[in-house]
Amino acid sequence: MSDILVVGSVALDSVKTTAGKSVEALGGSATYFALSASYFSSVALVGVVGEDFPREHRRTLERRRVDLEGLKAAKGKTFRWSGKYGKDAAVAETLATHLNVFKEFKPVLSEAQRKAPVVFLANIDPELQAEVLAQMKGPALVACDTMNYWIESKPAAIKKLLAKVDIFFSNDQEAMRLTGAPNALQAAEVLADWGPSVVVIKKGEHGALMKVGSKFFVFPAFPLARIKDPTGAGDTFAGGFLGYLASSASYKDVAHLKRAMAYGTTMASFNVQDFSTKNIEDLERDVIDERFHDLAERMMVPRADEFLKARRAVAA
Amino acid sequence: MSDILVVGSVALDSVKTTAGKSVEALGGSATYFALSASYFSSVALVGVVGEDFPREHRRTLERRRVDLEGLKAAKGKTFRWSGKYGKDAAVAETLATHLNVFKEFKPVLSEAQRKAPVVFLANIDPELQAEVLAQMKGPALVACDTMNYWIESKPAAIKKLLAKVDIFFSNDQEAMRLTGAPNALQAAEVLADWGPSVVVIKKGEHGALMKVGSKFFVFPAFPLARIKDPTGAGDTFAGGFLGYLASSASYKDVAHLKRAMAYGTTMASFNVQDFSTKNIEDLERDVIDERFHDLAERMMVPRADEFLKARRAVAA
Repeated sequence: MSDILVVGSVALDSVKTTAGKSVEALGGSATYFALSASYFSSVALVGVVGEDFPREHRRTLERRRVDLEGLKAAKGKTFRWSGKYGKDAAVAETLATHLNVFKEFKPVLSEAQRKAPVVFLANIDPELQAEVLAQMKGPALVACDTMNYWIESKPAAIKKLLAKVDIFFSNDQEAMRLTGAPNALQAAEVLADWGPSVVVIKKGEHGALMKVGSKFFVFPAFPLARIKDPTGAGDTFAGGFLGYLASSASYKDVAHLKRAMAYGTTMASFNVQDFSTKNIEDLERDVIDERFHDLAERMMVPRADEFLKARRAVAA
Repeated sequence: MSDILVVGSVALDSVKTTAGKSVEALGGSATYFALSASYFSSVALVGVVGEDFPREHRRTLERRRVDLEGLKAAKGKTFRWSGKYGKDAAVAETLATHLNVFKEFKPVLSEAQRKAPVVFLANIDPELQAEVLAQMKGPALVACDTMNYWIESKPAAIKKLLAKVDIFFSNDQEAMRLTGAPNALQAAEVLADWGPSVVVIKKGEHGALMKVGSKFFVFPAFPLARIKDPTGAGDTFAGGFLGYLASSASYKDVAHLKRAMAYGTTMASFNVQDFSTKNIEDLERDVIDERFHDLAERMMVPRADEFLKARRAVAA
């Protein structure tokens, strides 16, 4: 049995950015999540691809020991997305979406999959997310993400789902749209009222914030002057976050949740440095930990106590 | 002799925000800076007001022991600015600017003012900033800010000034416009090439970043779900930063520079919680230090070492 079950999309992405382009490269929310989480915990992926899904992409996931028992190969073509980013890497312009086999995606979990202690419902139809969750046998931790398309078309279903979710991941624009709140912090307050004990609002290059109980924790992004492709950064963040948390001693300990934020930030920073999943396919845990501590150092504020004490002593 | 000399505007601001409004309230870059810095260091202010400048505003600065020897009362009216903010507190819409006596502002420093060890050239005409700097007698630390108006009209003068400046404060949009860089980090790289050894890029609700040598440090803003008036946040940030730094043992020590960022962030967070300078007029240093440590705790990532060690021990 795997530590984490992820249900979501596996796709072929064609992306143009100011740094270049990729054509029919490995993508999809479950893919980014699984690769990222695999450095911390064991992951089982539930999804669907078409007959045309390249063998090498399957191998990429297998090399990271992602359990692909639940990756169904259906008759037809794999889900394809193409988009482009301008100077503002925060905004993707969708050029084309071909759902293909994903249109008929109705996941039925195996006995082993139902018993996973941690489940991540990546951004698919919220009614489908709820159906998957209903199949689970008392998971210890339920997390989910969503996207603008579902916020526009099925907001009530999202709200209903959130009542059964422990951790909700959202980007700031989506959180504001879903709640009608004027800023990310107020949006997080509303979302927490709907159910999740932990709300994580991702802000791309501006970092992320986390609401736990009544308290907000704030985290900058890892500073990168140049990025190649922001696709998948949010799911990679969630993968680092939940991968770490699932491996920790407690899902509710604030110290672990803060480290989870920093690991999410760290994994997302690797992801955006190359196209598709290239830069998160072959990392080493030591390299990840090095950047984790580098990030912690760049944002760490030395306590002012000793200095203040010394200053008062001089003044006295 | 004061620890810090600030040269900039003293104004009467009329501001509308989603939380209410203020009419002809105390404002101006030098005002916000001086009040904020006064909690850490002694400050002398050089500026000009008109005959109509209310006695109570002068008292507000005097209560914080700001040296007003250099605040000239000229024949005419005080500089007035009015603006409004919509839902997005990051963008002020200027409704009216009346320079009045500020139009003829040509600061001539006294002997004592010339000897200040730290000088902050708040956002006035960059040629005027250079003239003020030329009057200084070997300050140990020179810092400045600017604004869009000068970036559009006198970019060459700003670039020339920066060659003589140690610390440059800018917001992200202004830094990108001034340098032509596509993001804040690349803008900081260009600005550092022009001279300053420390470049601070302020991003409002998204925090701030600091480039020291080749290294970027990153800081989130203090999380506030509700703000009343963002006017003066940037100058208040600079006041907390330089006020703390001027009181520290070294202007180049990275630990002090990081604390300076956190004190800048802390002071700005107080400022935006009320209109005009109301919330930074009567603080206590203990209250400031409490929020400083609260902020540090909200962004602090516990090192993962012990956890990793324990995990490896279990695995072995």
